[in-house]
Amino acid sequence: MTPVSARPGSAVSVAVLGAGSWGTTFAKTLADAATASGVDRSIRVWGRREEVVAEINGNHRNPQYLADIDLPPSITASTDVADVLSGADLVVLAVPAQSLRLQLRKWKPLIGPDALVVSLMKGLELGSDARMSEVIAEELDIPAERIAVVSGPNLAMEIAREEPTASVVACADAAAAGWIARSCTAPYFRPYTTSDIVGVEIGGIVKNVIALAVGICEGKQMGDNTKASVITRGLAETSRLALALGGKANTMAGLAGLGDLVATCSSPLSRNHTAGRLLGQGLTLDEVTQKMTQTAEGIKSGQAVHELAGKLGVEMPITAAVVAVLAGKLSVDQLGPLLLSRELKSEGDY
Amino acid sequence: MTPVSARPGSAVSVAVLGAGSWGTTFAKTLADAATASGVDRSIRVWGRREEVVAEINGNHRNPQYLADIDLPPSITASTDVADVLSGADLVVLAVPAQSLRLQLRKWKPLIGPDALVVSLMKGLELGSDARMSEVIAEELDIPAERIAVVSGPNLAMEIAREEPTASVVACADAAAAGWIARSCTAPYFRPYTTSDIVGVEIGGIVKNVIALAVGICEGKQMGDNTKASVITRGLAETSRLALALGGKANTMAGLAGLGDLVATCSSPLSRNHTAGRLLGQGLTLDEVTQKMTQTAEGIKSGQAVHELAGKLGVEMPITAAVVAVLAGKLSVDQLGPLLLSRELKSEGDY
Repeated sequence: MTPVSARPGSAVSVAVLGAGSWGTTFAKTLADAATASGVDRSIRVWGRREEVVAEINGNHRNPQYLADIDLPPSITASTDVADVLSGADLVVLAVPAQSLRLQLRKWKPLIGPDALVVSLMKGLELGSDARMSEVIAEELDIPAERIAVVSGPNLAMEIAREEPTASVVACADAAAAGWIARSCTAPYFRPYTTSDIVGVEIGGIVKNVIALAVGICEGKQMGDNTKASVITRGLAETSRLALALGGKANTMAGLAGLGDLVATCSSPLSRNHTAGRLLGQGLTLDEVTQKMTQTAEGIKSGQAVHELAGKLGVEMPITAAVVAVLAGKLSVDQLGPLLLSRELKSEGDY
Repeated sequence: MTPVSARPGSAVSVAVLGAGSWGTTFAKTLADAATASGVDRSIRVWGRREEVVAEINGNHRNPQYLADIDLPPSITASTDVADVLSGADLVVLAVPAQSLRLQLRKWKPLIGPDALVVSLMKGLELGSDARMSEVIAEELDIPAERIAVVSGPNLAMEIAREEPTASVVACADAAAAGWIARSCTAPYFRPYTTSDIVGVEIGGIVKNVIALAVGICEGKQMGDNTKASVITRGLAETSRLALALGGKANTMAGLAGLGDLVATCSSPLSRNHTAGRLLGQGLTLDEVTQKMTQTAEGIKSGQAVHELAGKLGVEMPITAAVVAVLAGKLSVDQLGPLLLSRELKSEGDY
């Protein structure tokens, strides 16, 4: 591949695969970042549905996911993925986690040999328990230096509204991380860099499961004392898993660990939080799924996280309880007392 | 002193000094804990004001601080501190942090030589920058084994409503910590123990300052992405201070660090959070102080935390910004951008 040092200072031609709320918002951020730094940048979004693509091209909006947000006219959209990927030096992946592998098999021949690939996805693949960066490495057969992850306290709708937001770009290669960070630094979006891709991904994956637990507590009308305890113990079990996989404790205490968890668990905008709240109010999993227009990723990833923890011998009691609720083996009435009744080993140090 | 092993299994005679919301709530918790474990326990609350004492004795309520919460009839109150302290094997201190030292000078001769002393206070003394446990040790001239701190995600009103809550009892002596934990374990209140009194106190002190910052962001209508970043970076600077004083990183990631911070920053019940919100809405410090019936401790402790950090060479940019706002040297309009514009060193690791 062309070394990052031999490229223009930031991305020139970007393909964003996936026209949901985060993919579309990140496309907007990349466009605003180019404008702010006086760079000419082509940004093309691939969407599966004709009507979404037509709205982006015709009205510069994505009403299903981003309500009345105006998109920069430099963003175009297409249902033709070859068209979107052609010539891209930055490829941003924002599709549902469980569909990524099959999509990549189709897309592989269309992705240029120099393109850096960024994952915006927060999920663990069912069956393989693979992180998204691992699926990308396997299916595209590219080295770690070309794969990055962007994650942090990043509620898409707030970024789309241009509310000040910090984020983390993780890549094994510092130069690549810096190049991606420069490419997306907008007046309202401030990315920091790290080499800890494992920690950043695990933080983003498990927070969705913890957000389900916090949502259930909220649906059961438990108070802020309880919710804060679940967040605290949730981050502790997330950190145990990340460390077992080679991630770093600092990452878990940072924006992509604690920051993302707190934003997700505080916000009524979070799908996982909302799904939990509906479960807590007594709806069945089927009813919750029908009620929501977008996937609550934690519902799917929870089982994979639980399996991975089991393989590694990592104790994750909150994840286990959420998985049991989703499987119908534990009622939400039993969940609350269970979360508080377990011994908090991490607090004991005599 | 009589060793803890030679005492009854939990407190028999308790003095709670201070009839505010947390002191009164903790008295209720101690009473309910005794009932739950079949122990006979006398609980006497000292209050400065006749009308509060009369309400507790006559109506088993403390309407100014705990609205319509019914207190157990085993709790009595008095304005006579000698009466309250007489024979107490557990002395709970819940007075305003800045008044503690002068109070203790009066109370010292009245506190029995075997009594364990528990601090519920979350403040740093202005001028000396002393933690409450240090003020207690100095003024009462008693060893560390007799001094404990109770702290955690413990919004008093939620505990008064008997919502499930976890907490931390910190004491250098494991047996004393366990004895205090047993004394306050109620069906809705679950304390864990630790030896890290420094970490637990610093967590409780600095969270009030960070809650002011988060409140200001909320008053300025900033989103959950921003607030989550301030909480994340706030815990990072709290941890730096705690570690510099000999506290432990684990404590900061636990209930008395992260847990307390998240509960305080999430809750409309928090005074510091509320004070910050009013500042963010444009009220002056004087107007905020007049509007609130109870002290927002962070307003007083902020300056002491800032001084302590300066002495130790610990960087605490959020605390510094809050202190500047309180001193009228920085406007709340400047605070938000300042919080997000600083480099996040902790995220960089190349």
